[in-house]
Amino acid sequence: MHILVIGAGGMLGAKLLARLGNEGKLGGKSISRVTRYDAVIPPAPPASNYPVETFVGDLSAAGEAEKLIAGRPDVIFHLAAIVSGEAEKDFEKGYRINLDATRILFEVIRKVGGGYKPKIIFTSSIAVFGAPFPDAIGDEFFTTPLTSYGTQKAIDELLLNDYSRRGFFDGVALRMPTVCVRPGKPNLAASGFFSNIIREPLAGKEAVLPVSDTVRHWHVSPRAAIQFLVQAATLDTEKLGNRRTLTLPGLSCTVAEQIEALRRVAGNDVVKLIRRENDETIAKIVSGWPRNFDPQRALSLGFKAEGSFEDIIRVHMEDELAPCK
Amino acid sequence: MHILVIGAGGMLGAKLLARLGNEGKLGGKSISRVTRYDAVIPPAPPASNYPVETFVGDLSAAGEAEKLIAGRPDVIFHLAAIVSGEAEKDFEKGYRINLDATRILFEVIRKVGGGYKPKIIFTSSIAVFGAPFPDAIGDEFFTTPLTSYGTQKAIDELLLNDYSRRGFFDGVALRMPTVCVRPGKPNLAASGFFSNIIREPLAGKEAVLPVSDTVRHWHVSPRAAIQFLVQAATLDTEKLGNRRTLTLPGLSCTVAEQIEALRRVAGNDVVKLIRRENDETIAKIVSGWPRNFDPQRALSLGFKAEGSFEDIIRVHMEDELAPCK
Repeated sequence: MHILVIGAGGMLGAKLLARLGNEGKLGGKSISRVTRYDAVIPPAPPASNYPVETFVGDLSAAGEAEKLIAGRPDVIFHLAAIVSGEAEKDFEKGYRINLDATRILFEVIRKVGGGYKPKIIFTSSIAVFGAPFPDAIGDEFFTTPLTSYGTQKAIDELLLNDYSRRGFFDGVALRMPTVCVRPGKPNLAASGFFSNIIREPLAGKEAVLPVSDTVRHWHVSPRAAIQFLVQAATLDTEKLGNRRTLTLPGLSCTVAEQIEALRRVAGNDVVKLIRRENDETIAKIVSGWPRNFDPQRALSLGFKAEGSFEDIIRVHMEDELAPCK
Repeated sequence: MHILVIGAGGMLGAKLLARLGNEGKLGGKSISRVTRYDAVIPPAPPASNYPVETFVGDLSAAGEAEKLIAGRPDVIFHLAAIVSGEAEKDFEKGYRINLDATRILFEVIRKVGGGYKPKIIFTSSIAVFGAPFPDAIGDEFFTTPLTSYGTQKAIDELLLNDYSRRGFFDGVALRMPTVCVRPGKPNLAASGFFSNIIREPLAGKEAVLPVSDTVRHWHVSPRAAIQFLVQAATLDTEKLGNRRTLTLPGLSCTVAEQIEALRRVAGNDVVKLIRRENDETIAKIVSGWPRNFDPQRALSLGFKAEGSFEDIIRVHMEDELAPCK
């Protein structure tokens, strides 16, 4: 089985490659080869007993998708995107990378023909939803994105559904919850604080909380996110019919609940490293974000997120802070 | 006020031009100039006291949208599309005309800049919905098109919303009910029979009913459809916020109710001209179509459809069969 990972240099891409390398299989089938693709050179691939080839380029540029599909990958994880803030700032770049590159990839696959029908796992986002919405968003709620990024993801979902319905490939689009605790350095994304207030104090460093602790949001650990990708790639897509977009399970909790979970897991002194410093801009952005979902469909298909924020913190400690890392 | 009508040669385009010509105004403002555009040469424009310019071309071709926008129209009615059946048969043509041409138009407008911000009225379709759905589809129900045409319209809606949110133009997308009674010759569209079984018998001709008379569908007269276009063009779009797609009101009725209305308006002998001849293919297509809506938002904005199918028949008789026509 040949697997292509587009966006291999990102956090999810790297973790997915580590899991694939560790298991050597996907859905019971041996992996014979992996191709990595990203706009920047990713770090060396994790250990594996199959060859890993790496390409660096811009998927929207002429000939790039053809180059990747020439190897006829059986499974394609398409995780690459310009993030929300950048897509909002640079309108043309956002549409070029988040819409055109995806459509070019789909078109190149369609034109191969001759029975070639790879599986495509595409990461969409809860940014396809925009306020006002109900407290818990159901599976049949409409998409009214309030960012160009959310618009591009919603369009990609529609394209993936149509191309799958026409039989050009076998696609699944996954609306990921916010991944928390993100490892690595604090980043400037508006959602960064959800991870920062856990990761930094656990590392003995101060973290800034820019919003009220009544803010509620929708989280999943990196480990569960990778499990979602693997599950989607091995799912019997007959069960999806023509509705190939899934809102995934997550944990809905407030910032106050996050902090209390941190206190229980790591104690008062760690929690004291969270400094409250309101930021009106971030508070305003966050107020338009979904808080909770009722993802019955994904639950019935066996997708499962953490049951408590303490579990999410423990996953972070096991996967990122264990002595061997 | 300069008005551009894209798709001017279609049924709605021609009727819209007739109304504009008749009134000479739109929303209280005098019309100074109208530009008509279509892929085929439309019939001579109806009488008006302003000049009418006509262009013929393919909106997806290089330079076409630039040519139309060079005249800086204040209001753009974008009614042009490849119909559902053709977009399903010719995948590339459907995406080129129904998606690419619309996006090119939006891009050309965006790039004008300098405060140019026309109003755009775009005709979307209830084909953005695909079964299964509730008996009456609400305003917040998700779009799961089962045709490439419906996919292209749903994508256009998302683009129109994002471009409007960013301030590049002032757009409104209208999900039209099936227009009935369509004037002219019977056409081969799967939905054609809804009009055929009324129009043909009224003209003393036989018409075929290919489905069971329990089939329920969502109708509006051509006159009300034109009123929707005019109302949307003169709507205070502040009221729409960032949700610029409206599902329009219509009349939900069964084929049996259509036939009974025809009997009441025109008598038994006319109804006898309807010949029942089941067509499994058409029955299957129609079974996936929406039957009824609960379009609270458009109703609260003052959009109004006919209250009975008898009214729809009377509109047809007044507008198409009056002695002076």
